[in-house]
Amino acid sequence: MTHKRVHNFNPGPAALPLPVLKEIQEEFLDFHGSGMSITEISHRSSLFEETIDDALARARRLLKLSDDFHVLFMQGGASLQFCMIPMNLTFPGRPADYINTGVWSTKAIKEAQIQGKDVRIVATSEDRNFSYIPTEYTVDEQASYVHFTSNNTIVGTQWQRFPDGGGVPLISDMSSDLMSRPIDVKPFGLIYAGAQKNFGTAGVTMVIIREDMLKRVPDNVPTMLKYTTTRDNKSLFNTPPTFAIYVIGLVLTWLEGTIGGLKEMEKINRQKASLIYEVIDNSEIYQGIAEHNSRSTMNVTFRLPNEKLGQRFLAEAMRNGFHGLKGHRSVGGCRASLYNAVTLDSVRTLAAFMREFEEKSLRG
Amino acid sequence: MTHKRVHNFNPGPAALPLPVLKEIQEEFLDFHGSGMSITEISHRSSLFEETIDDALARARRLLKLSDDFHVLFMQGGASLQFCMIPMNLTFPGRPADYINTGVWSTKAIKEAQIQGKDVRIVATSEDRNFSYIPTEYTVDEQASYVHFTSNNTIVGTQWQRFPDGGGVPLISDMSSDLMSRPIDVKPFGLIYAGAQKNFGTAGVTMVIIREDMLKRVPDNVPTMLKYTTTRDNKSLFNTPPTFAIYVIGLVLTWLEGTIGGLKEMEKINRQKASLIYEVIDNSEIYQGIAEHNSRSTMNVTFRLPNEKLGQRFLAEAMRNGFHGLKGHRSVGGCRASLYNAVTLDSVRTLAAFMREFEEKSLRG
Repeated sequence: MTHKRVHNFNPGPAALPLPVLKEIQEEFLDFHGSGMSITEISHRSSLFEETIDDALARARRLLKLSDDFHVLFMQGGASLQFCMIPMNLTFPGRPADYINTGVWSTKAIKEAQIQGKDVRIVATSEDRNFSYIPTEYTVDEQASYVHFTSNNTIVGTQWQRFPDGGGVPLISDMSSDLMSRPIDVKPFGLIYAGAQKNFGTAGVTMVIIREDMLKRVPDNVPTMLKYTTTRDNKSLFNTPPTFAIYVIGLVLTWLEGTIGGLKEMEKINRQKASLIYEVIDNSEIYQGIAEHNSRSTMNVTFRLPNEKLGQRFLAEAMRNGFHGLKGHRSVGGCRASLYNAVTLDSVRTLAAFMREFEEKSLRG
Repeated sequence: MTHKRVHNFNPGPAALPLPVLKEIQEEFLDFHGSGMSITEISHRSSLFEETIDDALARARRLLKLSDDFHVLFMQGGASLQFCMIPMNLTFPGRPADYINTGVWSTKAIKEAQIQGKDVRIVATSEDRNFSYIPTEYTVDEQASYVHFTSNNTIVGTQWQRFPDGGGVPLISDMSSDLMSRPIDVKPFGLIYAGAQKNFGTAGVTMVIIREDMLKRVPDNVPTMLKYTTTRDNKSLFNTPPTFAIYVIGLVLTWLEGTIGGLKEMEKINRQKASLIYEVIDNSEIYQGIAEHNSRSTMNVTFRLPNEKLGQRFLAEAMRNGFHGLKGHRSVGGCRASLYNAVTLDSVRTLAAFMREFEEKSLRG
């Protein structure tokens, strides 16, 4: 490796696997012998068709999807999904249930309200600053769906067992943990995730939608905002973000081949998170922000005893090549995002640094 | 140059300048000494802020925009703009005027109709298969806007002088010719263009909107579909397509520096188009599809006397390293797309090939 690389703990866009970056670089002027860059080929060419088909097939295999689920590539991020979900998937006159676990859930709720939907907030953890995952909620059996955010990047909480919809389809924003662990998709009507945290780069959103949900799409929705448009046209209704889809294919290849699938990925992700939580739990200066049983394997959040020490920690970390550790502005403190491509080595090095910093600061 | 490169006449995504591709490749593992790839840096980092600000400043300089115009980066392509324009910019009870010059205009019209807007088609060239640009039309002075497609990729027509809106704001889909020539933006309320033809790669749309148009945006539009959201958040409301914005910056740098601006670019583009039109106009086998005075400098369309010869032409062209010359499925024939990054050398080589092919086919 001739290039200096930092330890990248960015909350997203985030680290990508180094072998993936090297492959992109190597073939950037001549994609698969075409004499063109991946950025220059037509989305209607057989070369791109192979690229997108391969990415889709890998996603299906990794998530063990049955035929009644469609995988779509869309644009606009999770934020566009926030408005498309109520627009496409509510039944007239029936409520839409939402569980509020933080900033992103709140935004999803707001978009349903803007459209005048009958929104019911069936549970919220706002009372303790979203530091936990609620366990008590009752889903209306008449509800069109139950929406929740599977991992909350800002405070660092995560659903370890998904909510029980009692037959009502679950809809989940999995922007920060899709492809980080195996999931049972059966109870889900729709899952969506921007690629830029665990399986790609910014500019493309993966949407997994169950066949029966597509029947709900009203006729009068604008063409680009209908899930059926993307499904009917195999994500090629208009020019898709070709480069971003190509990158997904490469990351999923790495996930399947080098890592060995989502079970293995989950094992590694748990190991990484444990390394940092262990430091926190045995520390006199680091204090975890999320409640114990709601902790995320993706985003480990913590505070130092005072602002001044916190600033010193971040500055010293940066000097030592640890990047992206500053907490979200709404919470403050520190956050280590440990997405798929963050290596065990990077995390071990961070854990050691945190211990050293603590020793020094307690001595000094 | 160690890599084999084809002559790329793709209709979009299309050729990018080779120096731009090389720069991306060179710094792909370490963006500006950050120890991260451009695909791994946070959209909230100062490094990305510099990147997006530079791209925006270059766009403003190249197009000579005054302060009352905003430049936005959005996702979803022109197709998402088709529905956002009537959603955001129509006055209640007042008509929206459209000029129909082909498939893309027709799609824009359809999206306004889906929303129940009072759509008036003030001119259309459908009577002669969209092979010309209409010159007769009357814009309703009460109209919210007049929409037209500045360059029509499929049949290969282009507005050389923009329509006169008589004070009603013009709105134009310039997906296939923005940044290919200087334009007078004053009469425009909004201009939009996917980047993948003349100034970047797929996955980002440039929107140029005049300040007064933003006052029309209704409150109840979903957040992600409001132009004001993107304007108020400087295109960073949510994670933008970071890589695609970075590529725009590099292509605009090439346009300003290496080419010398849009006047120079237009000169080169006219020269390229003339080379191919000259072959067509002096040929016994190539027949132009667009009417003479409506011809596009971006997409040169032509037919051969019969299907068999057409197929032979395309096959032989492909063997000789000319890529992307097949016409759109709805028109057939051939199309050479001559966007900014297609070199004069590539076009000269194509013109010579066309002449040779004609000689051979007339002899044989």
